Amino acid sequence: MKDRIKQQLDFLLEIDKEKNIFRQTHLSGHGRAENDAEHAWHMAIAAYLLAEYSNEPVDVGKVLIMCLIHDIVEIDAGDTYAYDPEGKKTQHLREEMAKNRIFSILPEDQRADMMAIFDEFEANETAEAHFAHAMDNLQPLILNDSNNGSDWKAHGVTAAQVYGRQGTTKTGSEILYRVTDEIIRSNIEKGNLPEN
Amino acid sequence: MKDRIKQQLDFLLEIDKEKNIFRQTHLSGHGRAENDAEHAWHMAIAAYLLAEYSNEPVDVGKVLIMCLIHDIVEIDAGDTYAYDPEGKKTQHLREEMAKNRIFSILPEDQRADMMAIFDEFEANETAEAHFAHAMDNLQPLILNDSNNGSDWKAHGVTAAQVYGRQGTTKTGSEILYRVTDEIIRSNIEKGNLPEN
Repeated sequence: MKDRIKQQLDFLLEIDKEKNIFRQTHLSGHGRAENDAEHAWHMAIAAYLLAEYSNEPVDVGKVLIMCLIHDIVEIDAGDTYAYDPEGKKTQHLREEMAKNRIFSILPEDQRADMMAIFDEFEANETAEAHFAHAMDNLQPLILNDSNNGSDWKAHGVTAAQVYGRQGTTKTGSEILYRVTDEIIRSNIEKGNLPEN
Repeated sequence: MKDRIKQQLDFLLEIDKEKNIFRQTHLSGHGRAENDAEHAWHMAIAAYLLAEYSNEPVDVGKVLIMCLIHDIVEIDAGDTYAYDPEGKKTQHLREEMAKNRIFSILPEDQRADMMAIFDEFEANETAEAHFAHAMDNLQPLILNDSNNGSDWKAHGVTAAQVYGRQGTTKTGSEILYRVTDEIIRSNIEKGNLPEN
């Protein structure tokens, strides 16, 4: 087997571990906790179907691969819950170290390509990154809404915090931000989310 | 919320169930059984990284969405193990019914689009479908190889059967078929796979 193919297969085997990184979000029907690979798969399909609502035109193929790889660093760095201020402080450093280790398994050109896509997502300055962030927000919102906000309840999360986290959706899609607002309001009304 | 967005979100919530459809393949490190959503995520990243080995040039974005949705019908139809001849007999009918129910949750234009991508994968006549099939074969092969063939051993699968299943890889990628052959041979040598 050529070195290049071996490196690519080694990387593919390494990222299998992302299926063991569990999030705070639970599957619909009050199921088990979701893992990062499932979240990324779900986000990517959402991006394909909802791209028409992006504020700016996007390269959908690029959004797909961005969604698929954006959490690979969590294999080493772990999942940092969106409402965990302590974890947030060290998140960037932990993820940078993970990025260097994991993407370096690939051949040089693909290492650079994957890191660039990952960095573009993190910097959140392009149309594709904006829309991928909207998907990163919307996907767990749909699940949590379907479960009557049980993940928010478990962590004592308030509507103000959810609005804070979901704010980046607006940069990606004004239309989907209005949908987000509608979902949050309905959860406040149902008593699933205290306002503050 | 507009009807169109509601239909799209309903579909996204419905496909969450794919995370509960478990396959015969186990995660690396002799982990638990893999589910369809994880398999699709893994296949799509593999497609992105290995597209250079496709026999014909492919639209990578199209291969990605094809990989991501190709098993959605299994939400209703269940996973049919590659080496289960009885299940194979009714697989097509079960999957057709599932396709109609699940994709019909979407707005008409997206229903048609998703069905066309799904049908293209199934018909396996285009460059994108050929390459997606190669990924559908290679992804579980990598995992099973990493586990010393434990999935094959559990089901008494022979090398002849694996060659039969992996044969479609050749149409997508001669280079990856040679890699496949190398992996199968090494498993025969290690005693993980009887020849016949």
